[in-house]
Amino acid sequence: VTARQTEPAPAEAPAAAGRGGGGASLTAAAIAERVGGRLVGDGARVVRRVAALDRAAADAISFYASARYAGEFAASACGVVLVSPALADTPGGPATRVVVDKPHEALLAVIPALYAPPPRVPGVHPTAVLGRGVRLGADVVVGPHVVLGDDAVLGDRAWIDAGCSVGARAELGDDSRLHAGVTLYPETVLGRRVVVHAGARLGVDGFGYVFGDRQHRRIPHVGRVVVEDDVEIGANVTVDRGSVGDTVIGAGTKIDNLVHIGHNCRIGRLCLIMAQVGIAGSATIEDGVILAGQAGLGGHITVGKGARVGGQAGVFGDVEPGLTVSGYPARRHKEALRATAATFKLAALLPRLERLLAEREAEAEPAAAEGDA
Amino acid sequence: VTARQTEPAPAEAPAAAGRGGGGASLTAAAIAERVGGRLVGDGARVVRRVAALDRAAADAISFYASARYAGEFAASACGVVLVSPALADTPGGPATRVVVDKPHEALLAVIPALYAPPPRVPGVHPTAVLGRGVRLGADVVVGPHVVLGDDAVLGDRAWIDAGCSVGARAELGDDSRLHAGVTLYPETVLGRRVVVHAGARLGVDGFGYVFGDRQHRRIPHVGRVVVEDDVEIGANVTVDRGSVGDTVIGAGTKIDNLVHIGHNCRIGRLCLIMAQVGIAGSATIEDGVILAGQAGLGGHITVGKGARVGGQAGVFGDVEPGLTVSGYPARRHKEALRATAATFKLAALLPRLERLLAEREAEAEPAAAEGDA
Amino acid sequence: VTARQTEPAPAEAPAAAGRGGGGASLTAAAIAERVGGRLVGDGARVVRRVAALDRAAADAISFYASARYAGEFAASACGVVLVSPALADTPGGPATRVVVDKPHEALLAVIPALYAPPPRVPGVHPTAVLGRGVRLGADVVVGPHVVLGDDAVLGDRAWIDAGCSVGARAELGDDSRLHAGVTLYPETVLGRRVVVHAGARLGVDGFGYVFGDRQHRRIPHVGRVVVEDDVEIGANVTVDRGSVGDTVIGAGTKIDNLVHIGHNCRIGRLCLIMAQVGIAGSATIEDGVILAGQAGLGGHITVGKGARVGGQAGVFGDVEPGLTVSGYPARRHKEALRATAATFKLAALLPRLERLLAEREAEAEPAAAEGDA
Repeated sequence: VTARQTEPAPAEAPAAAGRGGGGASLTAAAIAERVGGRLVGDGARVVRRVAALDRAAADAISFYASARYAGEFAASACGVVLVSPALADTPGGPATRVVVDKPHEALLAVIPALYAPPPRVPGVHPTAVLGRGVRLGADVVVGPHVVLGDDAVLGDRAWIDAGCSVGARAELGDDSRLHAGVTLYPETVLGRRVVVHAGARLGVDGFGYVFGDRQHRRIPHVGRVVVEDDVEIGANVTVDRGSVGDTVIGAGTKIDNLVHIGHNCRIGRLCLIMAQVGIAGSATIEDGVILAGQAGLGGHITVGKGARVGGQAGVFGDVEPGLTVSGYPARRHKEALRATAATFKLAALLPRLERLLAEREAEAEPAAAEGDA
Repeated sequence: VTARQTEPAPAEAPAAAGRGGGGASLTAAAIAERVGGRLVGDGARVVRRVAALDRAAADAISFYASARYAGEFAASACGVVLVSPALADTPGGPATRVVVDKPHEALLAVIPALYAPPPRVPGVHPTAVLGRGVRLGADVVVGPHVVLGDDAVLGDRAWIDAGCSVGARAELGDDSRLHAGVTLYPETVLGRRVVVHAGARLGVDGFGYVFGDRQHRRIPHVGRVVVEDDVEIGANVTVDRGSVGDTVIGAGTKIDNLVHIGHNCRIGRLCLIMAQVGIAGSATIEDGVILAGQAGLGGHITVGKGARVGGQAGVFGDVEPGLTVSGYPARRHKEALRATAATFKLAALLPRLERLLAEREAEAEPAAAEGDA
Repeated sequence: VTARQTEPAPAEAPAAAGRGGGGASLTAAAIAERVGGRLVGDGARVVRRVAALDRAAADAISFYASARYAGEFAASACGVVLVSPALADTPGGPATRVVVDKPHEALLAVIPALYAPPPRVPGVHPTAVLGRGVRLGADVVVGPHVVLGDDAVLGDRAWIDAGCSVGARAELGDDSRLHAGVTLYPETVLGRRVVVHAGARLGVDGFGYVFGDRQHRRIPHVGRVVVEDDVEIGANVTVDRGSVGDTVIGAGTKIDNLVHIGHNCRIGRLCLIMAQVGIAGSATIEDGVILAGQAGLGGHITVGKGARVGGQAGVFGDVEPGLTVSGYPARRHKEALRATAATFKLAALLPRLERLLAEREAEAEPAAAEGDA
């Protein structure tokens, strides 16, 4: 989930590296002050970008937090390095250092000063198509080729990128953002500061049919998708609308790319749902749950508060609050690990066990015969 | 797959609840007549929406079909309740009741009267771009920013939402609908009454390469995707075109979100394919098959008529008609359950088994030595 | 991955079959010359399309490479058949034959002569919206409703289909192509001859948060997605941008539909990544790796050069170069097969083992008691 220290930064065309990069710079002294660190070396040293140790040029700041990367540190050309106290006196390597407790977190604090946020130019692009009764808040951005359905509502500073389709009566709260190519089906409701990445589809008619031999008849879906404040939804995610009630995603929950959430699900607050997870209809995911990548959850189950579900787990029943489960079908993680380990041992034991059984049962048989006699 | 009784309906802004809601209303007497039920209480009672028992206000109709929800029933503020005969005389709870055999199905019959279908305004939006030779049926809807390739054909009442791209020579049958942002690659053919949800991509060049050490060379794909009548395809689904022949999806089959179907697959009629299922190339899925969520099917296999594949199952060989399989690799469901249960028991038995083997083999060794002597 | 011989070709409307079909034709003699084969029968016979044996009409060429399809061969109406030497003298079936070592590969060589590539009309569509400082190479195609952000760069002959959104400072190399509805986030870089299928999203902000009890705070992502030459990316794929460095996809790698690649991943050259694979952040996939469908790879792992990962495998640790792994958690393929087989045997053995343990331990106990006495 977090960046690895050795990740490479662009070697060529450094001016192009990083979103909105270019222009801004910081001295080593200013960085030390910004992160509350101790400066060693040349406080006038200037950097313009961040980069990993092994990819950094003299105009870059990097970080060094683990002796595992001693080689990269020794060879690094970075101009300034954020370094943890334990490693502060490492001989060799970059001379200009800022000693700070958590170098990676300190780097995150430096980034905003070097990388401007993407420019935000309020206005409605002339190619956008607005339905009747659309209400626009202050300073909204409506990009090229956006379509807003009848009676759609945009809060203040809502930002909609190119090619999005916002259905009739859908609502975006203040400071919410749709990246390019998002579809909100009619009546979908987003809270404030919601971010939806490219190609996500919210409010899709749920997969509900009355089965028949000659035809499967669709169950009408008159519920909505309701997304609370501060939710982030990944690229190409799909969320189905409710059938009678709503599908709800709780405040502060973060959803990674290509996740599917079925109709009538209720996702709690501050959950983390990793890429390609699938949640069948009418499931309840309580607050603070973590679902790792590609996990699948059956319909009508409840995953209790703070529970964790392992990657690729198949969850077909309720999960108690706080529990960690994994495997297929999902069980307590420790139990699942033991079962898996046992399976691999078993392959080796099996011939011996079969021989033992054969011998034992051969011994037992004559005895049984005698007993009969 | 179907809605759960307890799902919450919108508590706030009730006028906004439900697609196309607003306006229509029904009396309890009219509802009883509509569903063929027996009226108890005030036939003049008026409702304007549907809602779950625990979220319903006085202007909503709800349903009560299981004593499991007795608490919600007792406390419900709904104006009218559809109730099963066995529960018809429950004391307390909403006074105005319509007694009917299957309350949930009856509710589905009420919805169309309260929720108008989305308005359909025929015409070609001025921002749409039409290629040469496009043929449009009667009363088509072509939304904003739609692109129709050369010689594309739209049947009567075809409906294409905002931002769709219909490739050259692609065809939509009568009454078919593309939701926003769908891509039909060239030559893709949809039958009548086909519904394709937002962001689905049909006719993608299949994943076929002639491998090489220096380069993987793409196999040209000159087949098509052919979708028969009454098929529904979920959001962000991908279906690859055939290489030499066609990829075919049979009439009446329903496909959930984020499903992948490889090149040359032949999917039968009236199948149900749940979310995130993946089907590799050249697989044959016969009529009436059900594939549960996240199942993966290998290439060139056949899943027989009416077979069922469990969630997350990995199917690497043919499945006999009517069989239910599950697990990885998929086996008969009962066998898979037994194997899984055995695995979990094994973890507990293993130390005892290992001790037994050690003892037994220790006993056996001297005996063997004696035999040699 | 390759086409199956029996796949059906369109029975109706044959003139519409195949992308860009119509017009071109070949005689049997010309085909024999083209594929370096030996002609049997009427060299003047003309075909206009390719089709599978059981779907071909007299104007189609098909192929026959395995006696398994003898029935289809005997009944085929195809005008010309490519046939392997071993089957060249099969009695019955189509009379006009071209005998060639690898009939399927020969067919691939015939396709380009019968199916013209899609027409490519250079120019910028008037509905496209171009930002400031956009640089366009020679003969680019910019389709309807495309949006090019400020300072975006398109190489010579770059081709962008309808409705794509290319972010600020993004770059496409010469001869690269975006199919409809693709999103490139700002700064995304594509090499030469890269193909991106409909709805793919490259450069999405990675799923990285600093967790908190009241809020999860997003880690800024200032890295890019860099895609090298000759890569192909499937429909609705998502690739996250790097956090500090870049996410890189190596030259010649092919990625199927609905794949997810997390931030900071480094994918090598000439890899094959099948549909619905998910790769968590900061993973390293070395050259020539094959990842089968729905496999899931944990973060920060390395899959060595030429390794293969089975379908649905869950990889949580490093994989040695050249190794084949499968299962959950992934192990050497042979070991995984053995463990699975053992599990299924175990279910049958378990009652016998339990009885044996019970007997044995009952025997052992009195002995132990005596020992104590």
